[in-house]
Amino acid sequence: MKLQQLIKTHHLGLLFQQGKFGIEKESQRIDNKGNIVTTAHPSVFGNRSYHPYIQTDFAESQLELITPPNDKLEDTYRWLSAIHEVTLRSLPDDEYIFPFSMPAGLPPESEIKEAQLDNEWDVKYREHLSAIYGKYKQMVSGIHYNFQISEEFVESAFALQTEYCDKIAFRNALYMKLANNFLRYQWILVYLLAATPTVEAQYFGKNSPLAEGQLVRSLRSGPYGYVNAPHVVINHDSLQQYVESLEHFVATGDLLAEKEFYSNVRLRGAKKARELLKKGVKYAEFRLFDLNPLSPYGIELVDAKFIHLFLLAMLWIDETSGQKEVELGTQKLYQVALEDPRSHTAFQAEGEAILNLMLAMLDDLSVPQNEKDLLQQKLAQFADPSQTVNGRLLAAIEQAGSYKALGAQLAQQYKAQAFERFYAISAFDNMELSTQALLFDAIQQGLQIELLDENDQFLALKFGDHLEYVKNGNMTSHDQYISPLIMENKVVTKKVLAKAGFNVPKSIEFTSLEQAVAHYPLFEGKAVVIKPKSTNYGLGITIFQQGVTDKADFAKAIEIAFREDKEVMVEDYLVGTEYRFFVLGDETLAVLLRVPANVKGDGAHTVRELVEAKNSDPLRGDGSRSPLKKIALGDIELLQLKEQGLTPDSIPADGQIVQLRANSNISTGGDSIDMTDQMHDSYKQLAVSIAKAMGAKVCGVDLIIPDLTKAAEPSLRSWGVIEANFNPMMMMHIFPYQGKSRRLTKAVLKMLFPGLP
Amino acid sequence: MKLQQLIKTHHLGLLFQQGKFGIEKESQRIDNKGNIVTTAHPSVFGNRSYHPYIQTDFAESQLELITPPNDKLEDTYRWLSAIHEVTLRSLPDDEYIFPFSMPAGLPPESEIKEAQLDNEWDVKYREHLSAIYGKYKQMVSGIHYNFQISEEFVESAFALQTEYCDKIAFRNALYMKLANNFLRYQWILVYLLAATPTVEAQYFGKNSPLAEGQLVRSLRSGPYGYVNAPHVVINHDSLQQYVESLEHFVATGDLLAEKEFYSNVRLRGAKKARELLKKGVKYAEFRLFDLNPLSPYGIELVDAKFIHLFLLAMLWIDETSGQKEVELGTQKLYQVALEDPRSHTAFQAEGEAILNLMLAMLDDLSVPQNEKDLLQQKLAQFADPSQTVNGRLLAAIEQAGSYKALGAQLAQQYKAQAFERFYAISAFDNMELSTQALLFDAIQQGLQIELLDENDQFLALKFGDHLEYVKNGNMTSHDQYISPLIMENKVVTKKVLAKAGFNVPKSIEFTSLEQAVAHYPLFEGKAVVIKPKSTNYGLGITIFQQGVTDKADFAKAIEIAFREDKEVMVEDYLVGTEYRFFVLGDETLAVLLRVPANVKGDGAHTVRELVEAKNSDPLRGDGSRSPLKKIALGDIELLQLKEQGLTPDSIPADGQIVQLRANSNISTGGDSIDMTDQMHDSYKQLAVSIAKAMGAKVCGVDLIIPDLTKAAEPSLRSWGVIEANFNPMMMMHIFPYQGKSRRLTKAVLKMLFPGLP
Repeated sequence: MKLQQLIKTHHLGLLFQQGKFGIEKESQRIDNKGNIVTTAHPSVFGNRSYHPYIQTDFAESQLELITPPNDKLEDTYRWLSAIHEVTLRSLPDDEYIFPFSMPAGLPPESEIKEAQLDNEWDVKYREHLSAIYGKYKQMVSGIHYNFQISEEFVESAFALQTEYCDKIAFRNALYMKLANNFLRYQWILVYLLAATPTVEAQYFGKNSPLAEGQLVRSLRSGPYGYVNAPHVVINHDSLQQYVESLEHFVATGDLLAEKEFYSNVRLRGAKKARELLKKGVKYAEFRLFDLNPLSPYGIELVDAKFIHLFLLAMLWIDETSGQKEVELGTQKLYQVALEDPRSHTAFQAEGEAILNLMLAMLDDLSVPQNEKDLLQQKLAQFADPSQTVNGRLLAAIEQAGSYKALGAQLAQQYKAQAFERFYAISAFDNMELSTQALLFDAIQQGLQIELLDENDQFLALKFGDHLEYVKNGNMTSHDQYISPLIMENKVVTKKVLAKAGFNVPKSIEFTSLEQAVAHYPLFEGKAVVIKPKSTNYGLGITIFQQGVTDKADFAKAIEIAFREDKEVMVEDYLVGTEYRFFVLGDETLAVLLRVPANVKGDGAHTVRELVEAKNSDPLRGDGSRSPLKKIALGDIELLQLKEQGLTPDSIPADGQIVQLRANSNISTGGDSIDMTDQMHDSYKQLAVSIAKAMGAKVCGVDLIIPDLTKAAEPSLRSWGVIEANFNPMMMMHIFPYQGKSRRLTKAVLKMLFPGLP
Repeated sequence: MKLQQLIKTHHLGLLFQQGKFGIEKESQRIDNKGNIVTTAHPSVFGNRSYHPYIQTDFAESQLELITPPNDKLEDTYRWLSAIHEVTLRSLPDDEYIFPFSMPAGLPPESEIKEAQLDNEWDVKYREHLSAIYGKYKQMVSGIHYNFQISEEFVESAFALQTEYCDKIAFRNALYMKLANNFLRYQWILVYLLAATPTVEAQYFGKNSPLAEGQLVRSLRSGPYGYVNAPHVVINHDSLQQYVESLEHFVATGDLLAEKEFYSNVRLRGAKKARELLKKGVKYAEFRLFDLNPLSPYGIELVDAKFIHLFLLAMLWIDETSGQKEVELGTQKLYQVALEDPRSHTAFQAEGEAILNLMLAMLDDLSVPQNEKDLLQQKLAQFADPSQTVNGRLLAAIEQAGSYKALGAQLAQQYKAQAFERFYAISAFDNMELSTQALLFDAIQQGLQIELLDENDQFLALKFGDHLEYVKNGNMTSHDQYISPLIMENKVVTKKVLAKAGFNVPKSIEFTSLEQAVAHYPLFEGKAVVIKPKSTNYGLGITIFQQGVTDKADFAKAIEIAFREDKEVMVEDYLVGTEYRFFVLGDETLAVLLRVPANVKGDGAHTVRELVEAKNSDPLRGDGSRSPLKKIALGDIELLQLKEQGLTPDSIPADGQIVQLRANSNISTGGDSIDMTDQMHDSYKQLAVSIAKAMGAKVCGVDLIIPDLTKAAEPSLRSWGVIEANFNPMMMMHIFPYQGKSRRLTKAVLKMLFPGLP
């Protein structure tokens, strides 16, 4: 199959470089010393019978983290990062993820539990593996790299080639070429990326094949790793022969199931290999890779990219390896795996030839320079083994004393990193924090997620067959279209709420300055808001919070309002404290008080120092990528201080509250204080009723309340509705400055998927 | 009750002038000669058991048009106009509305059907009236004017006065004062506004009380109108006495029910008068008014305003009339009613005094000058009876020959006027045409309507207890919030549709000019669209409709797209015709083809003349207040002509289609052509499935279709989805340039209210 010429002639290079990528990463849960724990898989991850991201492999302690397939490797890597952050933040405080493939601190075999799965056969299969290979070998972890050749490339190439007249046969041939050539040259990847140079004595017990202190490139990929009995030889000459030989060894009982065949490549797309002949291969799974302990996620993105280029080269080169070449490749693999990692490899010339061939391929594909640089770096590692992953790893192990000690140290470091911005998901930090929180919960609970438009915070979530779309964290199919339209229109909101019998501020409209001023006596002494009927950006609004007492002031405010509109409203100003109620369905899930930016004096520190101390809260940042905003000391704050007779260098008395802003917005450094438990239940019920009056399922209701401890008295006007919001902020409730966190995103998921456990 | 002083002292003038207003107008359906018809009430008006606007009074032929109550008289008048337009356009072609109170062309009594109502008692009551008073007297029509004193005024005044300690008693006293003073001075309104100077001989038969040729001011309001037996005297000294005397005459059988008491004022708010004592009067109904035949709606807005001021004056003056004064008022009423309408009234001095008092009141209330001018005009009519309604009417009757002839002539004129802009509702023409169409249907079918925000096209509709909100004619509670959000985002739309298996244009993304140009061969010869990934206002888009054949052109287009974004897409251009499918639920209700502005030659007229002729279509206007837009002859059209070797003065051949625009938008003079019946059903099903994939109930789907007569072939890519719209235009389907009208607004109402008949 001469693919190279076809791609060049017909300009298929771009399609050739496309594809789908997925990564599966096994690893052990450990304690702070690096010992594998015997605790159960955390129940917070829901049920493994369907979880798409967080599974267990052989053992209950052996996490398997799985990314969804993506068109771009960068996205796959973001998922790998996100799933790690969710997992690490969800583990018990004293558990970590071991970054090495080879286990350390193994408990006695009897204490190692096979993964406690729902499916009986899955459990039986694991018990069979324990019996045949021993439990310790099954505790080894690694990376599986899934690659699907772009279907558009397959279609275009199929249309242009002449060798095959059936598209499935053509696609299968492509995958056979990829698999066999990979097996032929896989030793190269072991030389460059392997990271299992040693293992604790306990692992092999008395029968260690290694000499005292012997280091190798890969214990996992060599003859002491997963290997089948020597007589189990699967024929790679064609897919047909491959299928037949696989079925033969299952029939003889040498393999319990096809999946017991330990190959570094598995062809995927059907439950039984035979089906691949008809249905066609869908993708290939490359299982060769040791965890790279120097990467928090077990693999570096650049290495994942290198692997992709290597796979492309396996398709690009003219030869298609058959059974003979596969066997040669396996011999070389075993030889290289057992080489001393500090030494040059015996096959350096072949390795450099393949990398040079890859460089030539990149030229032909007009690939950007940085990918060529990556290849040049790898090429240089043939001359300098200390630059390979193993080389760098050995230096680190030496420093730490043992790979177990290094593993424990890195595991703690990686866990701490995952908590640095605990309210965010680093890989999805281009999205809003509320969407990140929703993603966190969705990953944790095992929903299938698709990021439809990250800029627009648009997700598709799936649980079983149930598909839901979510925008901005809480805009869903559960709300009626008309509800946000009602809330968006303040005039309509007021009418709808007034009709439904709720207290809204009363207002009188005027069409001329003279008319309004003539009615001044109606308002004298009352707290009122004067505003244009249609308000734009709050222009023309005057508030007489303490009651209007001067006719000239009143006239001036009316005049200002008339500059913006032909009609002016004088509205009651409700006196009390404003609270935000977050309503979901029949329940008020959270109540929040927003307090203007402030610091509390201690009689010792200056305002400036107090501000600095308050700003050191990890929740405070720029306000868009953090739940709270740092308090500024700008002109507005200085003016506010001045009004209190203070400067930034004043030292407020112990307990003195110094206000730095008049407005209570979180976005200007305000504090968010959870008051859910303190709020009288009658108001929570009221907020639910208000949301219902507008047909809203998810709604942020702003109520003015004179005393939150006393029951609402509808007739007495002791409270009032200010407005209702159809996409209420969730972050301020989830990570309040003070008070209990309310995990609203979980409630949104439960609303969308009532079947979630 | 000294209200005047209270209002002045406490600045209650604005509240005093507020209130709620409603108008009920009876009138007879007639043929083109002015004869009352004996056909049934049109079934298109649904069922009279609940219709809030279009009812029948005594007879089946006697329409009763009822406005909802409004805070502003102007709005009440708009409703009166709208209900008239709906009624007139819904009548059979040969039926009209008689503009006079006194009937003409009466059929024999036996042929007059009492209104065929569902409620048995209502029918019985009408039969009773027929028996006691004769059917002819019941055929007289008039205007009832409902007025509710502002509840805020009542509350404020009650709080400030000292006479009453119960608010209901205070409110009842206000209404008694209003009613009694009205009855005392009602003759003034008869002098100015009455319009029943004569009646056909047939009406009174042999026993006419009038001399041959005698003209009076009001046959309807005088002693020959509705009057009870002389001994039925109801005491007006207090509400208590009023209730008791009313109950007395019902008990004696002199009245079949309280409502048989014919007073020119009725106090409303309870089914039985006695309940008013406890519940309080809600509003007062003034039944004095003859139809003004010179007004299309039976009353002029200025007269309705004058009546309001008159009612205010009845509250403003210090006296509160008792039974004696009411009786005096009735005497004066009867006397004035029988005066010759061309003469001065005997009570001119009293009339002028009351109007001068009203003028003084307006001064005290700081009312705008135009309302004072109105009063001055009415005042002048005491000196010049020819300026009263009667005066002007008599002149018109003389010209027409008889009041019947004048009535028939005006009835036809008013009906023609109602059809002038048949696609609009004149009174609601500030709203979008689709909302006007929805309002038309809602009025016709008898939904309770509230205009929540006219600028925002926001309505509340109610049928029984079922309340629905509608924005822009089709945005409702029946759509999920997420659906429009999906449709609003083109990237998400495409992903959602592609996932659901629909054909969407395929695309490839590039991140550099070089990369894109290197892949030119992939696209050579294909029809493609080149565009920035995020399109803003269509900037940077190039379409190669006929296939791209020049690499330099391709590179240029790529370069232009890169000016707008860092990523550029090359997308398949679908070849075929674009159709708009209007989907509602499980059905495609309409399919439309939009054709660029064009004229068809006839071998005789110039392009300019053909455009003019086409523009004379009443559907064509400015495009926002008309369903279609007039074709312009501006620069773009001239250029388009030039490309065809034409000028506006060219004479195209017979049958030649001259295109004046490249784009097919209706807003640039394009034609809308209904293709619902022509479109292959498979595409209609497809459009429904596409809407469903986005969870949409109401949706406009744009499909590209190669041949509308052949079934859709999903696998063959013989069609494609361009986009989906969540607030699809309805007007172009309701009033297409060509083809059948599809009344989509009725379907929207049926969706909202499945119980509608």
